Formats: sequence, structure tokens, C-alpha cells
Amino acid sequence: MADPRFFRRSGPIALGEIARFVGGALSQPGSADFMIRDIAALEYAVEGDITVLSDRRYLSVLGDNAASAVITTEALGRFIPSDRRMVFSNQPRLAFARLGHLFYREPVAEHPGIAASAHIAACATIGAAAQIDPGVVIGAGVVIGSGCQIGANTVIGPGVVLGDQCRVGANTTIGHALIGNRAEIGSGASIGGPGFGFEPHETGLVRMLQVGRVIIEDDVDIGANTAIDRGATGDTVIGAGSKLDNLVQIGHNVRMGKFCIVCGQAGIAGSTVLGDGVIIGGGSSVSDHLTIGSGAKIAGKSGVMRDIEPGGVVAGYPAVPIGDWRRQTAGLIRMFSRRSSKS
Amino acid sequence: MADPRFFRRSGPIALGEIARFVGGALSQPGSADFMIRDIAALEYAVEGDITVLSDRRYLSVLGDNAASAVITTEALGRFIPSDRRMVFSNQPRLAFARLGHLFYREPVAEHPGIAASAHIAACATIGAAAQIDPGVVIGAGVVIGSGCQIGANTVIGPGVVLGDQCRVGANTTIGHALIGNRAEIGSGASIGGPGFGFEPHETGLVRMLQVGRVIIEDDVDIGANTAIDRGATGDTVIGAGSKLDNLVQIGHNVRMGKFCIVCGQAGIAGSTVLGDGVIIGGGSSVSDHLTIGSGAKIAGKSGVMRDIEPGGVVAGYPAVPIGDWRRQTAGLIRMFSRRSSKS
Amino acid sequence: MADPRFFRRSGPIALGEIARFVGGALSQPGSADFMIRDIAALEYAVEGDITVLSDRRYLSVLGDNAASAVITTEALGRFIPSDRRMVFSNQPRLAFARLGHLFYREPVAEHPGIAASAHIAACATIGAAAQIDPGVVIGAGVVIGSGCQIGANTVIGPGVVLGDQCRVGANTTIGHALIGNRAEIGSGASIGGPGFGFEPHETGLVRMLQVGRVIIEDDVDIGANTAIDRGATGDTVIGAGSKLDNLVQIGHNVRMGKFCIVCGQAGIAGSTVLGDGVIIGGGSSVSDHLTIGSGAKIAGKSGVMRDIEPGGVVAGYPAVPIGDWRRQTAGLIRMFSRRSSKS
Repeated sequence: MADPRFFRRSGPIALGEIARFVGGALSQPGSADFMIRDIAALEYAVEGDITVLSDRRYLSVLGDNAASAVITTEALGRFIPSDRRMVFSNQPRLAFARLGHLFYREPVAEHPGIAASAHIAACATIGAAAQIDPGVVIGAGVVIGSGCQIGANTVIGPGVVLGDQCRVGANTTIGHALIGNRAEIGSGASIGGPGFGFEPHETGLVRMLQVGRVIIEDDVDIGANTAIDRGATGDTVIGAGSKLDNLVQIGHNVRMGKFCIVCGQAGIAGSTVLGDGVIIGGGSSVSDHLTIGSGAKIAGKSGVMRDIEPGGVVAGYPAVPIGDWRRQTAGLIRMFSRRSSKS
Repeated sequence: MADPRFFRRSGPIALGEIARFVGGALSQPGSADFMIRDIAALEYAVEGDITVLSDRRYLSVLGDNAASAVITTEALGRFIPSDRRMVFSNQPRLAFARLGHLFYREPVAEHPGIAASAHIAACATIGAAAQIDPGVVIGAGVVIGSGCQIGANTVIGPGVVLGDQCRVGANTTIGHALIGNRAEIGSGASIGGPGFGFEPHETGLVRMLQVGRVIIEDDVDIGANTAIDRGATGDTVIGAGSKLDNLVQIGHNVRMGKFCIVCGQAGIAGSTVLGDGVIIGGGSSVSDHLTIGSGAKIAGKSGVMRDIEPGGVVAGYPAVPIGDWRRQTAGLIRMFSRRSSKS
Repeated sequence: MADPRFFRRSGPIALGEIARFVGGALSQPGSADFMIRDIAALEYAVEGDITVLSDRRYLSVLGDNAASAVITTEALGRFIPSDRRMVFSNQPRLAFARLGHLFYREPVAEHPGIAASAHIAACATIGAAAQIDPGVVIGAGVVIGSGCQIGANTVIGPGVVLGDQCRVGANTTIGHALIGNRAEIGSGASIGGPGFGFEPHETGLVRMLQVGRVIIEDDVDIGANTAIDRGATGDTVIGAGSKLDNLVQIGHNVRMGKFCIVCGQAGIAGSTVLGDGVIIGGGSSVSDHLTIGSGAKIAGKSGVMRDIEPGGVVAGYPAVPIGDWRRQTAGLIRMFSRRSSKS
């Protein structure tokens, strides 16, 4: 179970209610009143817990554990002894994710109010039931929506707008940004700094005009210590529902579509445009001024130097279609390894 | 135009004054009194704006927009209808960059004074007209030059010296550092931490002596969330006019020359020495104890494991001369791709 | 010598005491009373200093400098004029590292007490002689051990436990974490954020349950601006004595053994398990759900996509045994370089 010092559990919750919540069916109709105490991943689940099985490879792990119920597909359920309580779902991992939020509700602004040590400019607007933690600094003209939580010592520069129900971590810096509803911004993130572009002059490097903004649409998550530069002219845009992991770098004037996923330490250089649903693996770098089509997938650690067509899947440095990359890497091992069978 | 919530524009400015400022010539002598309201990149410019055309490929973009004037070269001007107002410059991008600072002046310390919630050690020295924002913590013996701005909640450790007209972002940490004039340090940067070197002992790993400093010369820019370690013995040095992007890592005792450019998420390991004017692409890693000659260029995502001669241009992992790298990558595609013509 | 604005030196210390402290032997028994004023690396040492020579390649550097004593091995000592004072040690670098801490003692909490501007929740517990710097925010139920220093503007979330003698930098954020004794956590680090895992839903991406913790065992160092996510279910674990450099990313449920070394900008994706003594070079990426055996070494900039056996040494992207990688890279240069002899 989750450490009660850090997390507060709801429940217990009846298995029937769980099935209804996730739109699933009970394997044992008589189990609807069985009370489930907690939710846990397969390797951690104990008696009283509901867990999830989404892949046949983990059947043996399920066999060894005492979870009181399991969310799985009807097809996988055929391999599970019928005396175990099951909730059948076509998307068991999604059902499990949604159920997590039922057992562990995290209200955004649990302790509404403005800490005495917060420094709020006179002309800033703080929405109803927002929580402004100690040491927060909020500049002139800022608008914070209702029900937001602004973590301790976070600094929000003049003119920034946040929608409703945003959660901003501690020690975060936000400037020159318009942010939608339900944003989650990790601790230590830096949003709205000047873009990185210079022209050589006899006296040194002159920074190009950097008078754009960062536009973050609804339901975006931004990880810890991630940096997003504002546009030069025009805006840097993170599309609705996109998710950025920790230590990600987003250059000026990047325009990212909806529901993109950018894993840890990936970077996207200036003015590159991404469609919807693009997935970028951890540690990848995407060059500037490229067009990455909707649904494209970039394997971890890739170095992308060309446009990618919608739905394209690439890997490598320079990134090539993933089939080509697999042949390249397998070919190199064949050509040069003494013990390729052992590697 | 730039969002007035975030940026304040000067002007309008007469085209003749603009030409004088950038050392350029008007295509239409009679246009000297024409008033320019704003400045914008080519794809964003509207009537009343001045924009820039530095590359023939974008002539069609210019054709489609209503910018009231354009900075360009005399050679490119021949392709532009003569009824458009032009300012001829040999370096139009530089002229545009400089002009940006004329339209959008950003005074470093716009609101001089020390915020009541700042915590300044008794024996620190704060220069004239400096702006110390709320929550800033300044240690014993610190010297802050005149006209500096120290962003909210930034922490400056004992003994640090900043020159004049430095701008430090919010939530930044600086220790063990001597910093010149006109430094711009992004939010969330960490400057002066101990270097990463350990010796194994029977009881664990013992950290090597880390009693050096960080020396940042004049006119250096450091991006958001970048980390620069202090020297072990001796100093880590960032040469005058060098520019570091976001999330860059600089190891202990790195010595960087003047006017270097280090793009986002690049890293330079301990004791590597860079000459002047080195350019390092985003996401590159440079090993420790190397010598990178002046004017060397390192392509994005490279892994540099050997010295580079002055003027050398490398790419790849391990980095090789860029011509070799191009032949390698093209060769691999030829050898192993089924659809190399499509990749 | 170290800049007295930043570092305070003990001593002078008699050479005999130095030899005893490091368990070494004097080359000149009569030199036991000679007073050593300072310690410095070979290229910086001056008269009055003790330095170190651990590699025959640097003999000429020693020849050129005026250091008053040198720690070296008896074997290397044969190449050094006998009129120089030497301390013989089987592990001169270790002796030098340990001696550094004798000359430059850094008490963790030099100025015990709680700053007036720190915001400590009523039910938090602060150990004896701890130093809580200005602007620190400590949440409900937090336990800070004795002799800790918590740097200015650091934020420690509810329920976090720190052992004794921990040093936490400025602007650091820690949540959902149990931390042992003598941890050193760099400025700007973000510890305990939610893991990065989502399931697609018709309304967007739903975050998976993230109700685990971060467990940091004794004697761990964590660099500046590093990010460590908490477990999803279960814990993210950093084993005793492990050292993480700056800008490192540790995904949820990573379990790292003891005495691992993770260099700058390396990243380890979720649920990967590392044995003891693993060394990961700078800028490397390790995929999720892998097993990296004890003693494995991963070269800088590698992309690890497979398990590594204990003691395995890999390099490349995808990472392969380092001998294979060397043959690959040498082979590519042979095949495709016009001037391989010059690269």
C-alpha cells in the first residue's frame, strides 16, 4: 500500500462499483459486494488489493500473488483460475490508470488560501479556492484561475495567465506564458525564457528579438526541471493534452500538436513543428525547422535531422526509418563483432 | 506585434533613423520620414512593421506579406519590387537583431530597489540602482554591481561577485563564482556546485577536493536550468561573450574561450579546454580532458572523444570529421536500407 | 590556493601528521615536522603545498613545480629526485582526496539555527544543530535529522524524512522521499515528482497511478538540477554510497544498488534495476525495464537497450560490448574515411 505519510487512500470500494466505474464486467456476478481496499501494480499487490494483468507474460506473477481481484481482458481471463475475482475490460491498463485516480484522489488545491509569505502584486487576480503556497512571487497583471495550486517559492512573472485547476510545483519559474486549464507543471521547470539565437557582430554576439510567448493549451503536463523558451516573434505552443517528461528542452517557436508525448531529456530545437500524437523517446534530439508528422514515433536517443512523414517511425543518429536502423545495427554487429551471439 | 502584457515597444521610429542605426541605406530616399511601428520576423510581419529578408528562398513569403519595410541586402533587393521600402545592409540578420533591441528595450533593472522580503547579509554590497526581487537570498561578502536585476527567490552564496548590469533569472543558485558585467543568467540555473570526482575507499567513494571557483567573464549568457560546476583546484572559466543555452552541463575546470556557443542539453566534461568561437550543437557530449581548437564546430548530438583541431568540423558518435561522418551515414543507408530513396 | 572568499583552510599541518592520516610513509623521515600549508592539484601546486602524482605521464609537470611535498607510490617515487619530500601511498589519489577533506573541512551545518523567514509546518521535527536557511519551506510531518543544512528557498514536502548530517542545496524540491544520513543534494534538484506513464483514453492521456516513494540510502550524492521520480507502486531506490552528477534523470521505480556512479546528463528510464558499483558515463540513456548487472560500465553517450551482465562493459547506440563497438567504429572509419589517418 502507498505510504500514508504521502498519499491518502479512498475506499474501500465495492468491486461492483469498480466494474461500473471502468465500464467492465465481473467474472463472478456474486463478487459485486466484495470490498476492495487498495490498488497496486502486479508485483506489489497483496490481499485486499485490485491489480491488473494486461500481458500474458505476467500470468505467473499473478499466480504467485494474493491480490483479491484483477482487471484483465476476457481473453486473458481464460488463463486465470475461475475462482479469482476478475473485472473484464477491453483496455485493462486504461481501466487500472483510471481506477488509480478513484482510490487516490489528489485534489489540486487541498488547502485553499494565500500564504502570508507569498508576494502577490497588487494588480494580480487570484481565482476562487486557489492555493498559493509560502514564498510564491506573483507579478503584475497575472491571472490565476480557480482551484489552482502554486507550489512554494514558485515565481510567476508579469502578465502570465493560468486557467483553472492548474497544479504548479515548487521552485518553478513561469514568464511570458498563457496557460490553459488543468496544466500540471513540475518543480524546477523554467517556462518562458528567451530563445537561443544570436548574430555575430564586431562587438560580440547580439541576441535576436525574443518577444513572443509560450502558449500551453489545456491538460498539458510538464515535468520537473524542463525548460521551454518563448517564441522569438510569434509563440511557442504546446498542444492540448500533450505530456512532457523531466529535463526536456523546447526551443523557441516550437509548435507541438495535441496529445504528444516527449520522454525525459529529449530536446526539440527552435521552430520545429510537430503534428498530433507524436511520441519522442527519452534522450532524443530533434533539429530545428523540421516538420514531424502526426503520429510519428521517434525511438529513444535518436538524432532527428530531417522531416518525418505522418505515422513515420524512426531511430538512430541520424534518424532513419526504424527498419533501416535495425538492419544497420544488425549488419554492423555481423560485420564487426567477434561474439555477436553473446552481445 | 508582441503581447503588451509581456513586452513594451518603443517607437514608432522613422525609417531614416532605422537606417542610420543599422548603418544601412534606404532604397527610396524619400522614405526616410516614414514611421515604422514595430518589428517582426517575416512570417509574422504586418503593415506598419519592418521585417528582414536574408535568404532568397523566402522571397515568396515576403511577396505575400504587408510589411511596410524590409531589411535586406542590395543584391536581394533586386528581386524585390522597387515600390517596397527597403533598408540595404550587408548583414541584414545582424541589423534586424540590433534593431530588435531598439524597438524592445529591456532595461535590466526596471524597478530598482531591494524587496522587503529579500534577505541580504549585513556585509553584502549592493550596487547603485540594482533591483533585488522578493525572496532573494544574498550571502555574506557578496558584491552585486550597479544596475543588476536579481530575480525572485534566487540564492547567491557567500563571496560571490557580480559585475554591473547583470540580469539573473528567478530561482537561480550561484555560489563560488566571480561574474563579469552584463551577464544574463537564466532561471533555475545552478552555478558553482562541487565537481563530480570520487576515489574509491573501503568505506565508499570519497569526493576529490573541490575548492576552485567559477569565473564568468563579461557578456556571457547562461540558459535556464543549466549547471556549471566550480573548479576542483583552479577555476572553471566561461570566456567573454560566450552563450550557453538551457540545460547545458559544464564540468569542473572546463575552460571555455570567448564567443563560444553551446546549444541546449550539450555537456562538456571536466577539464576540457575550448578555444574561442567554438560552436557545440544541441545534445552533444564532449569528453573530459580534451582540447577543442578555436573555431571548431561540433554537430548536434555528437559524442566527442578526441581533441579537435582549430577550425575542425565534426559529427557523429564517436565524432569524426563531418565529411567522414556523412560518408559513413550515407554508406550505411546504401548498405542496409531497403528504401533508402524514401528515407 | 583556494579563494578565501569561498573556502576556509585548516593548517598548516605537519607532513608526519599527513602521512599518518593517509596511512602513508615518508620518503625522508626527517621531514615529519615540515609544515604543509595547503593542498593543490599538480598543475596548480606552489611552494608550501602538498600535491599528488599518480601517473608517470605527469612526472614532467612535477619537475616544473615547486610543491613542497608530493603523495605518490613508492614505485613512482623512484623517478622523483630524492631531495623532494614524498609521502608514499599505495593509493595516492585516494590519499589526496582524503587529505583534501582534512585541509578544507566543510562542516555541514556551520551556522545552526532556523532562519526567521523559513516556513516550518507546526508538526515538522527539526534535529539538533540543524541549519535551516532563509526562505526554506518544510511541510507537515517532515523529519530533519541532526546537523543537516537545508539551503535557502528549498522546499521539502509533507512527510519527507532526512537522516543526520544531510546537506541540501538551495532551490531544491523534495517530496515523497525517505532519505538516509549524510546525503548531499545539489541545488535545483527535483526529487519525488510523479512518474511519466500514461494510458490513452478517448478524452486524452490518463496518468498511471504514481503513489510510490523515493528511497535514498546513506551517503548518496545527487547533483544540481537532477530529477528523480517517485515509484508508481513501490519505490524508486538510490543505493547507499551512490553518486549522481548534474542534470541526471532517474525514472520511476528505478532501483540502483550501492556505490553506483552516474555522470552528468545520463538518464535511466522507469523500472530499470542496477546492481552495485555500476558506472554510467555522461549523456548515456538506459531504457526502461532493463537489468544492469553489478560492476557494469556504460561508456559516455551510450544508448542501452538490453540487459547488461555483471561486469559487462558496453558502448554505442545501441550499446554493444565495448570491443565490438571499437571494431565497428574503426571499421566504419576504414570503410568510409578519406583521411582516416588524420581524424
